[in-house]
Amino acid sequence: MFWDSDVGKWIEAASYALAHRRDDDIEAKIEAAIDDLEKAQAPDGYLNCWYLGREPDKRWTNLRDNHEMYNAGHLLEGAVAYFQVTGRRRFLDIMERYLDHIYATFGTGPNQRRGYDGHEEIELALMKLYYLTGERKHLDFATYIINERGQQPPHYFDIERERREGGDTRQPYVHGNYEYSQSHKPVRDQDKVVGHAVRAMYLYTAMADLAAELNDPELKRACEVLWDDVMQTKMYVTAGLGPSAHNEGFTHDFDLPNQTAYAETCASVALIFWAQRMLHLDLDGKYADILELAMFNGALSGLSRDGEHYFYANPLESDGTPTRWEWHTCPCCTMNVSRLVASVGQYFLSTAEDGVAFHLYGGIASNVDIAGTKVSLREVSTYPWSGDIKIHVDPETPATFDVKLRIPDWCEGAGVSVNGETIDLSTAEKGYLTINREWQKGDVISLDLPMPPVRLYAHPGVIMDAGRVALKRGPLVYCLEETDNPGGKVQRLKLPRHAQLRTEKSDLFDGIVTLKADATAIDEADFRQLYRTDPPQETPSTLTAVPYFLWANREQGSMVVWVPEAVG
Amino acid sequence: MFWDSDVGKWIEAASYALAHRRDDDIEAKIEAAIDDLEKAQAPDGYLNCWYLGREPDKRWTNLRDNHEMYNAGHLLEGAVAYFQVTGRRRFLDIMERYLDHIYATFGTGPNQRRGYDGHEEIELALMKLYYLTGERKHLDFATYIINERGQQPPHYFDIERERREGGDTRQPYVHGNYEYSQSHKPVRDQDKVVGHAVRAMYLYTAMADLAAELNDPELKRACEVLWDDVMQTKMYVTAGLGPSAHNEGFTHDFDLPNQTAYAETCASVALIFWAQRMLHLDLDGKYADILELAMFNGALSGLSRDGEHYFYANPLESDGTPTRWEWHTCPCCTMNVSRLVASVGQYFLSTAEDGVAFHLYGGIASNVDIAGTKVSLREVSTYPWSGDIKIHVDPETPATFDVKLRIPDWCEGAGVSVNGETIDLSTAEKGYLTINREWQKGDVISLDLPMPPVRLYAHPGVIMDAGRVALKRGPLVYCLEETDNPGGKVQRLKLPRHAQLRTEKSDLFDGIVTLKADATAIDEADFRQLYRTDPPQETPSTLTAVPYFLWANREQGSMVVWVPEAVG
Repeated sequence: MFWDSDVGKWIEAASYALAHRRDDDIEAKIEAAIDDLEKAQAPDGYLNCWYLGREPDKRWTNLRDNHEMYNAGHLLEGAVAYFQVTGRRRFLDIMERYLDHIYATFGTGPNQRRGYDGHEEIELALMKLYYLTGERKHLDFATYIINERGQQPPHYFDIERERREGGDTRQPYVHGNYEYSQSHKPVRDQDKVVGHAVRAMYLYTAMADLAAELNDPELKRACEVLWDDVMQTKMYVTAGLGPSAHNEGFTHDFDLPNQTAYAETCASVALIFWAQRMLHLDLDGKYADILELAMFNGALSGLSRDGEHYFYANPLESDGTPTRWEWHTCPCCTMNVSRLVASVGQYFLSTAEDGVAFHLYGGIASNVDIAGTKVSLREVSTYPWSGDIKIHVDPETPATFDVKLRIPDWCEGAGVSVNGETIDLSTAEKGYLTINREWQKGDVISLDLPMPPVRLYAHPGVIMDAGRVALKRGPLVYCLEETDNPGGKVQRLKLPRHAQLRTEKSDLFDGIVTLKADATAIDEADFRQLYRTDPPQETPSTLTAVPYFLWANREQGSMVVWVPEAVG
Repeated sequence: MFWDSDVGKWIEAASYALAHRRDDDIEAKIEAAIDDLEKAQAPDGYLNCWYLGREPDKRWTNLRDNHEMYNAGHLLEGAVAYFQVTGRRRFLDIMERYLDHIYATFGTGPNQRRGYDGHEEIELALMKLYYLTGERKHLDFATYIINERGQQPPHYFDIERERREGGDTRQPYVHGNYEYSQSHKPVRDQDKVVGHAVRAMYLYTAMADLAAELNDPELKRACEVLWDDVMQTKMYVTAGLGPSAHNEGFTHDFDLPNQTAYAETCASVALIFWAQRMLHLDLDGKYADILELAMFNGALSGLSRDGEHYFYANPLESDGTPTRWEWHTCPCCTMNVSRLVASVGQYFLSTAEDGVAFHLYGGIASNVDIAGTKVSLREVSTYPWSGDIKIHVDPETPATFDVKLRIPDWCEGAGVSVNGETIDLSTAEKGYLTINREWQKGDVISLDLPMPPVRLYAHPGVIMDAGRVALKRGPLVYCLEETDNPGGKVQRLKLPRHAQLRTEKSDLFDGIVTLKADATAIDEADFRQLYRTDPPQETPSTLTAVPYFLWANREQGSMVVWVPEAVG
């Protein structure tokens, strides 16, 4: 019953792809899907293929579990993207008819039900439609469902269940409580990140959108409190979210097991959405740091190098058994990572009337309007392999405006110059350096972000990481894979605390930077028993680490992010 | 549908309790249960309360899943124990009528079905009945079901499914394959321990019984190969078995996660049964070592100190969330650990015509017949807290026979004397020292088993134990509990490799021996972030370890068996 959402996400991803390169075959496929949706749509606008095909009289009877608005949200995101890229309105018209039906059915009016969906998503899609059309009704409905969420007593899901199942025949609710869908209390009262991770991230994304749009300090504050909670106690070092397969989501503070990490790809993708909205709400590098972390690690790991294999769960440790899926019975992650990759340019910079802010580095060219002037912007770098970045700022005519450059929190000793003239970084605030000047064609900003490899240590509350370190360079978290460290499981390697971490330009994956260090290794062959009293013989060795997002693209084998430290 | 088994196990445990002290109330309860069973029994002898009450026409249609023979086996064990303790035959008669029905229904005869149970248990119960009665038919049926197991094509469970579900309506088998029930191949061809851990242990117990009884070298060899497999690659250091909740059982080699360890109490109890039977098959200390390890650790941990709380799963690490159950919807473990504790005396020694072998130490008094003489045996010690053991050997009249003393594999530098005269230990073979002499009233053997605390290191294939050590003293595996090590999760403590492990007689639990060591501790309060590049400040500290079997008897908190080693 969630498959409409995958059609929507596919159309969205395909539309972003079309923005890069028109493709008749893809366009024909999208149009065919829209034909089907148009045919399926009920005369009153309702459009959910599962219910229309199987249980047409049961529509809107189980918002808690059955994803109707969630599906509508993803279809709507697809329709918005397709319209933005092609200018074709047909899909958008279909969805607006559906939305009119939804708006008539749900709300606080006398003949309306006070419903909202168990799986958040339509909220953020409605905000996109509002930004596109400026039509107030979309903002109003988004406001309504966000405010209505978790209101009680009575709880809408209870009312609905009573209606569906009657007094005594209630089925036990498999998810136990409404934390699963973040509907345990009104959103402004929520201060702990709970439940299904993807649902949570989609909700918070829309809350941040709405806080910005309505200039609502209370909602903004809720977003900030939730942000701090997840950052301080619930995020994997890869920006993976949600340790537990049981609820596909969050558990208790510091519960971050590595081998069994769920860390659904969709959750890291959705964290990127939320971080971007927080950044729009408040230009603070701490949001961009996480956006970058999720982008280069926990989200990207979900997609194989060949673009055709996936991770639904993203463990941080493996004894060699799991491998990527070719497909998944719940294929949400495949399309989610695809639409992210196809739209990655949306995350690099944002513009305001008086300037532009660079959030991510890599290679991007963009033409923007700033302070009434057309400005061509071009980032040139081999980031994240090197922190040596050039940004060409070419206004059509000389113009004075701000260029804000994110100085990542992980970076110490950054250097910036414009046309060779050094800029003082001490004026940087909240992770951004502002350069205000009259920009002229040919201006070049040089940004030098030193990225020596570092060790990370986890809070001792994270019991699985005790005695272990993670390796990171710039935005990339590294891992050990058995194929680069043959001779047994990679966990046999131990890294002395003071061993130097060396970078090496390798031939792997078209030339990535690997990390190397002197290490000690336990010889498995020396171990005849499962347990013994003699300390293992440790022999000098070298360890090789590769970026986490590239793991499981070669021979199957063990992998570890948190490397045991050697005993002195 | 497995509840008959719990009635059987309760009667068995209660019977053993009666052997220690008669109790009218318990006897009345047992008799009432037998009344009910007698009333429930069908005229043809069939006796399964679930089927008789709910689906009387479906009996014997799903041996694969529905535990009918398993239930019969546990009832039979209860009947045997009750008869042995009280001499009352009624329950045994009921069960023998039921067995006659089973023997008529299943077998290789022309009108019989070639069935056996998906959950092994009746096999070992039948061997008990055979030992009690000497009636060949019980041995024959045990032989038949052990030999029939896993024979194919066709596989009996497929035949049965075909009959039950017809051609096209087959339900997918939830356990995927027949390894779950060790019926994937004939038992003599099995060389890897697979599937549901308790089922596996019950099967191997009966296989070892049968190998001894039939003097079957092929079956003995299969037992030995399976033993080596589990010992070398699949057993927790606590003698816990079966890492996975998914199949309540075994996975792949070295897959021994600590926090998520299933390690069902029943599986360690059943390992004790198997080890005892292997010991009967071959007096080798390696079996007694494991019997002792399971007894004092993985099995005993399942029962709380107050005798009223239980663990179904026995993790080796906790962040403080799990606690003992007051009860369990599947209460198998509660009765299993109870019947073990109530019958613990059965495991201390065994006799042969020409001698007696001591397997376990503690405190036990037993009167046995050896070489035609009544001999009173009395072990006196505070074992396992001390390895200083006295054994009083008092034959009615002077008699020459062997006294075999197990010298545990974990012990170095053991000393033995008889009446103060030192015995040479170099003649000990396969873990047993044989003392042959003319024993007289008043003879005292002194056994000194030094038990300095030691560190254990796991095979590097066990990825979760990398960089960690387990602490052990004598037969006891120790753990750190937060209540003894306040200030944060116990995983914040690290043990330097060369720190001395000290023993301390404590006031805890009526005077256990704790372990102490100088350690380093990370100050959680010093950690403001989830991850950071600065190595944690480690301050000198002391760690206190208590026996694993006693964990979760005091304040809830974190616990760890595998302690991180400190970085030098």
